[in-house]
Amino acid sequence: MSHTLVFNCGSSSLTYKVFRDVPSSPPEVVLHGKAHRVGVKGSEPSYIENRYGGTVHKDIVPIKDHRKAAALAIEFVEKMSIPVDHVGHRFVHGGSRFTGSLFLDEKVLKALQECAPLAPIHNPIALSVIRESRKSIPLERHYITFDNAFHSTLPPRAYAYMLPKAILEKFGFRKYGFHGLSYSFVVGETARFLGADPGTLRIVACHLGTGGSSVAAILGGRSIDTSMGFSPLTGLVMGTRSGDIDPLLTVYLMAVYGYRPDDLLDFLNKKSGLLGISGFSSDINDIIRRIGGGEDNAELAVRMYVHRLKKYIGSYIAALGGIDALVFTDEIGLRNPFIREKVCDGMDWAGITLDKGLNAAAPVDRISDLRAPGSRVSILAIPTEEELVIYLGGARLFADKEATRTDH
Amino acid sequence: MSHTLVFNCGSSSLTYKVFRDVPSSPPEVVLHGKAHRVGVKGSEPSYIENRYGGTVHKDIVPIKDHRKAAALAIEFVEKMSIPVDHVGHRFVHGGSRFTGSLFLDEKVLKALQECAPLAPIHNPIALSVIRESRKSIPLERHYITFDNAFHSTLPPRAYAYMLPKAILEKFGFRKYGFHGLSYSFVVGETARFLGADPGTLRIVACHLGTGGSSVAAILGGRSIDTSMGFSPLTGLVMGTRSGDIDPLLTVYLMAVYGYRPDDLLDFLNKKSGLLGISGFSSDINDIIRRIGGGEDNAELAVRMYVHRLKKYIGSYIAALGGIDALVFTDEIGLRNPFIREKVCDGMDWAGITLDKGLNAAAPVDRISDLRAPGSRVSILAIPTEEELVIYLGGARLFADKEATRTDH
Repeated sequence: MSHTLVFNCGSSSLTYKVFRDVPSSPPEVVLHGKAHRVGVKGSEPSYIENRYGGTVHKDIVPIKDHRKAAALAIEFVEKMSIPVDHVGHRFVHGGSRFTGSLFLDEKVLKALQECAPLAPIHNPIALSVIRESRKSIPLERHYITFDNAFHSTLPPRAYAYMLPKAILEKFGFRKYGFHGLSYSFVVGETARFLGADPGTLRIVACHLGTGGSSVAAILGGRSIDTSMGFSPLTGLVMGTRSGDIDPLLTVYLMAVYGYRPDDLLDFLNKKSGLLGISGFSSDINDIIRRIGGGEDNAELAVRMYVHRLKKYIGSYIAALGGIDALVFTDEIGLRNPFIREKVCDGMDWAGITLDKGLNAAAPVDRISDLRAPGSRVSILAIPTEEELVIYLGGARLFADKEATRTDH
Repeated sequence: MSHTLVFNCGSSSLTYKVFRDVPSSPPEVVLHGKAHRVGVKGSEPSYIENRYGGTVHKDIVPIKDHRKAAALAIEFVEKMSIPVDHVGHRFVHGGSRFTGSLFLDEKVLKALQECAPLAPIHNPIALSVIRESRKSIPLERHYITFDNAFHSTLPPRAYAYMLPKAILEKFGFRKYGFHGLSYSFVVGETARFLGADPGTLRIVACHLGTGGSSVAAILGGRSIDTSMGFSPLTGLVMGTRSGDIDPLLTVYLMAVYGYRPDDLLDFLNKKSGLLGISGFSSDINDIIRRIGGGEDNAELAVRMYVHRLKKYIGSYIAALGGIDALVFTDEIGLRNPFIREKVCDGMDWAGITLDKGLNAAAPVDRISDLRAPGSRVSILAIPTEEELVIYLGGARLFADKEATRTDH
């Protein structure tokens, strides 16, 4: 029986799980945990919760970056005497060079470092977690799974940018999309829960994380559009990222006011979004609590969050030619009934009517349908399982390696 | 009886009209014309049509810029011996300094020149038309009307960008929106045609020009969202403008590849959009004709045009909480049944069902409803009248001036 430690970096969180491989059965999660509010500027402290053998160990400690979060996780795994055979990492953006899962070595690591500017928040933090964890587990026992494979089905009308052909070809600019592990999981869960063939479903799925968020239009199990683009900077209102803006703004700041590209990358990625507009927090829960409490921009930040999300949902209903299921997942999607209620408000025209009671009482440990009687569309809150998808990506790699070994 | 010559620069056209002021009656259009394909790179030549006294004078001549187009128009007006008392101009972007109509003088002209970077295509061409026309009509008899006044009702959730507060405040970044003269006109026409109170209508209006295009969500007669932003660069697929792109792309080109801001402004405004992706034309009619004719990207360009527009319509239906009328206007909106058919295809979920026969035979000189029996939503093709709105802006200015004079 082998153990795989899976790391999943969100922009402001680190989830980890240790899976035990059980022959002919689904894998067992031996131990898991999550570091919250990693590097977040807000009014509440960061903490890590480690769960093992029915017990929750919560430590409120400063977690200034993901490297520190990884060190805390490994420390706990070692303290519980769990042997680790493999380490799996989610890697957000491999450009067009990488799309599947692969084992790490120094050469791959160097190539990944070159992809850092593609996802200036995520790629560096994933690399820092790799650096931290290879201290205790040798590099050749690490592998990575790429997050954008699920969106490889985007049609050209959705992934192409309207730029000069020469620029598109030279730099490989296209929409990649992100949160693919999560979408892949929730599509399967939606079909299973509704007892439907995924090939017949029109799903708008909202992956709403504490840091990054996106929406995807999924037709017959395949992604046909998504709100993130070449980078995870664009689309919805997020914790610290700008989301969609007029592209003239950045060029104008450089042309007229002498801003440097590095300044722009810094503020577009780390000081915009909810943090930028609220001025005090990148955390939507923080901000919701402050509505009416003297923070002028708290209400505006929430209205923008909801308005932008409603617009994306509407646009994807148009792209899909209608909708069968509206899915909410990840931290905010699953645990924030207030946001779900605001987003579903006034969507009856699309057949979406939320049951407020079911919404308020939605469980967070399993899938549930929150639609009111008479709502044509299912409204599902689903706990996502990206780590399981990362684990399965690794399991396929090991099986291939084993098969190759046996052949020789 | 005074005569007002009104100039209306599109990015690739120049429309002009001479209005004769008729006391206690609507103004009479004495003479009008339009220069087509001004500065357009494509397979067809540029030309000007002048209409006077029931006769159309069409000249196929090279029209390399708007200054040349204005010179041709003035030449025709003079040849027909029409006296010009006032000249009205549409000015696209006055930033937050200007919003109403005002008379020109050297000081205002200088301030307008400083707004040039805000709308790098439109503002300079409007200025060049002013320069050309003041040669024959003295500057103090010119006035301008700003295009973005109609969108002054946008709520903060729609106009705010998710950037750091300090940046927003310092540079005044917000969504302004454009084509306001046109939206203002078509909203009135829609209410009149449907015999409805504009205050009760939810309208999604698509202003589809040969150069620039936008969509607006209009609730009870007031604009609540629109696809252009701080600049007219963003939103839909247009002739040569990029529309929405991931903001990282431009910063990445500068940070990693040393592009200069001026290069970017040039290609984002003048070499992107339909011209960029097709590689051969910025004209959607050109491109539609070449589908299946060996131009690989003709079909992709049209699919992108339609996909983006459908998505915006869907998003604004969501923002409005449903839709009563879908409006198509301006050159492409009014005269291109192919685009209307593609856009309305598969929109039955929103109550939008087009009558293909009515669509194919839609008149271009008056408003018509193209909905199929059973379509809950009206689908209107409306010839817009921006020049009348510009004329009326001037008429109010003259009346105020007269009133001030009488007071003294």
